[in-house]
Amino acid sequence: KTAEPPNLTAIAEKVKQGSMRELAKAITFIESNAGDHYLYGQKLLQELLPSTGKAIRIGITGVPGAGKSTFIESFGTMLCDAGHRVAVLAIDPSSSISGGSILGDKTRMEKLAKHSNAFIRPSPSGGTLGGVHRKTRETMLLCEAAGFDVILIETVGVGQSEFIVRSMVDFFMLLALTGAGDELQGMKKGIMELADAIVVNKADGVNKQLAEKTKNEFNQILHFLQPATKGWISKAYTCSALKNEGMDSIWSVIGEFRETVEKSGVLNERRRRQTKEWLHTLIMEQLKNNFYRHPYVKDQISQLEQAAMDGDITPSQATESLFREVYGDK
Amino acid sequence: KTAEPPNLTAIAEKVKQGSMRELAKAITFIESNAGDHYLYGQKLLQELLPSTGKAIRIGITGVPGAGKSTFIESFGTMLCDAGHRVAVLAIDPSSSISGGSILGDKTRMEKLAKHSNAFIRPSPSGGTLGGVHRKTRETMLLCEAAGFDVILIETVGVGQSEFIVRSMVDFFMLLALTGAGDELQGMKKGIMELADAIVVNKADGVNKQLAEKTKNEFNQILHFLQPATKGWISKAYTCSALKNEGMDSIWSVIGEFRETVEKSGVLNERRRRQTKEWLHTLIMEQLKNNFYRHPYVKDQISQLEQAAMDGDITPSQATESLFREVYGDK
Repeated sequence: KTAEPPNLTAIAEKVKQGSMRELAKAITFIESNAGDHYLYGQKLLQELLPSTGKAIRIGITGVPGAGKSTFIESFGTMLCDAGHRVAVLAIDPSSSISGGSILGDKTRMEKLAKHSNAFIRPSPSGGTLGGVHRKTRETMLLCEAAGFDVILIETVGVGQSEFIVRSMVDFFMLLALTGAGDELQGMKKGIMELADAIVVNKADGVNKQLAEKTKNEFNQILHFLQPATKGWISKAYTCSALKNEGMDSIWSVIGEFRETVEKSGVLNERRRRQTKEWLHTLIMEQLKNNFYRHPYVKDQISQLEQAAMDGDITPSQATESLFREVYGDK
Repeated sequence: KTAEPPNLTAIAEKVKQGSMRELAKAITFIESNAGDHYLYGQKLLQELLPSTGKAIRIGITGVPGAGKSTFIESFGTMLCDAGHRVAVLAIDPSSSISGGSILGDKTRMEKLAKHSNAFIRPSPSGGTLGGVHRKTRETMLLCEAAGFDVILIETVGVGQSEFIVRSMVDFFMLLALTGAGDELQGMKKGIMELADAIVVNKADGVNKQLAEKTKNEFNQILHFLQPATKGWISKAYTCSALKNEGMDSIWSVIGEFRETVEKSGVLNERRRRQTKEWLHTLIMEQLKNNFYRHPYVKDQISQLEQAAMDGDITPSQATESLFREVYGDK
């Protein structure tokens, strides 16, 4: 699309120096599905790879209404004021269908968006969920190369998004509301066991006591669950993002977590495992895409699904007939 | 391997009439990885497909020591004595590595094994985990065609085995020991949310009171979790498989479950979804096998994993280089 290929080494250099303009350009390449731009993105990333990995990567999820935006606004602003450089990313699987992102609205974090130490990027949109996954993961690395030392990745909690975010962060936080009973009923299966911390938000005013009670209930449940991170005991906390209360304690908890897992080697181990799993996820994604996009498969799959569900054909036979046609093998 | 192809229609007819000899023969074909025999198995299954689906499919898991064999022996014998025909199958992922199965020992269920209404088949062994999965699933269907009205599928709880069993049964039961606290610490993440019932075994003698306490603790936790089956409230129960106590109540619970999900349509919906998902699982398995068995991939993958983990190359680039070589595409 550009007549002349960009000077990637120069861009990489400027990203490393912290240029927001060049970072945005690099991310645009990474987010592109077009051949040339995609390749520029990959080359840039390759060049910047040695400068990545120094940030703490924090994932944040929670049911709708838990106050994720308010939390990130309050938490992020506190960190930026303290001199940290904070990048806020998002995974929104619905954006892979709608092509638009409900997290694209920077007005949700108005104060943070204006802070010179902050960088907010909405969920990449369009393409497959695997594409959204890849783009967020690689954008995170670009942000690290640009000197951001805190990465916050928000998820809307749709589909597999929490599992995707968990697979790319160091610390995973579940934002909850008061009233654990009802709250938990609405939570996705297995989510609590991914959390390194559960933070009960809106612990202010008349809600404060109830928030304490909810925190205790969560702690009871956490006691029964397997730890999300080896050597770390996940606990529940309270905060009020609206009143900026409890933000510093949460940051302390994260600091303690980081110290623990860095010392034990669990952090390094987790990141290496994440990278390896990510490689295999990419491979599977690509295999899947190539197969399901094949004209014969596209044409036949619904019929075969139906025949299998109706008991007219075994899934093994359906599979074989597809592979015979597509690859000529059994 | 046989000089003359077997008369599959005759075998299918005899299986439908309940011949154990022909059922065993059919399962041997299904379990075979050799071309001819595998094809015979598939043809048989296809012919028998209309006669499948009438059994209640029950999955049973639990930590080592929970008494799964004793439970199945006691529960299965009760059902056989009452005129039911009970098939006991197993999923043991370790058998895909070792080639042998720790569930192969019929002496674990000596009484049941001798019962004329019972059929016990150890976990298929050898091949991939996907292969073990397919063989057990298809064997279940053959057993249904042979007139078994209760299918019990045991899992040793290694690897992904519970999830595999959950994906092929109607009712999933978690066998537990007294002392929920410690018990839960050893449980796999997310297992409790798969269970339609938790049964605390060994509720006898001095253990009886503790078992009641554990049951209550499980009920408290279950209250907070999402139901495993729509419209069904998973609860905890106690039993003593050793003393044959509580077996009838568990069978009543399963009967109630069946009535509920048949009436609501949830059973039919679940089975159709399971079949559809199974088709796509088979496709992914085959794609994966074909790819990872490719000589170039086999040769390069460890090196690429290492380079990605060391941060020398991005997983996207590693993936591309493999696909370029194997398929000649991007």
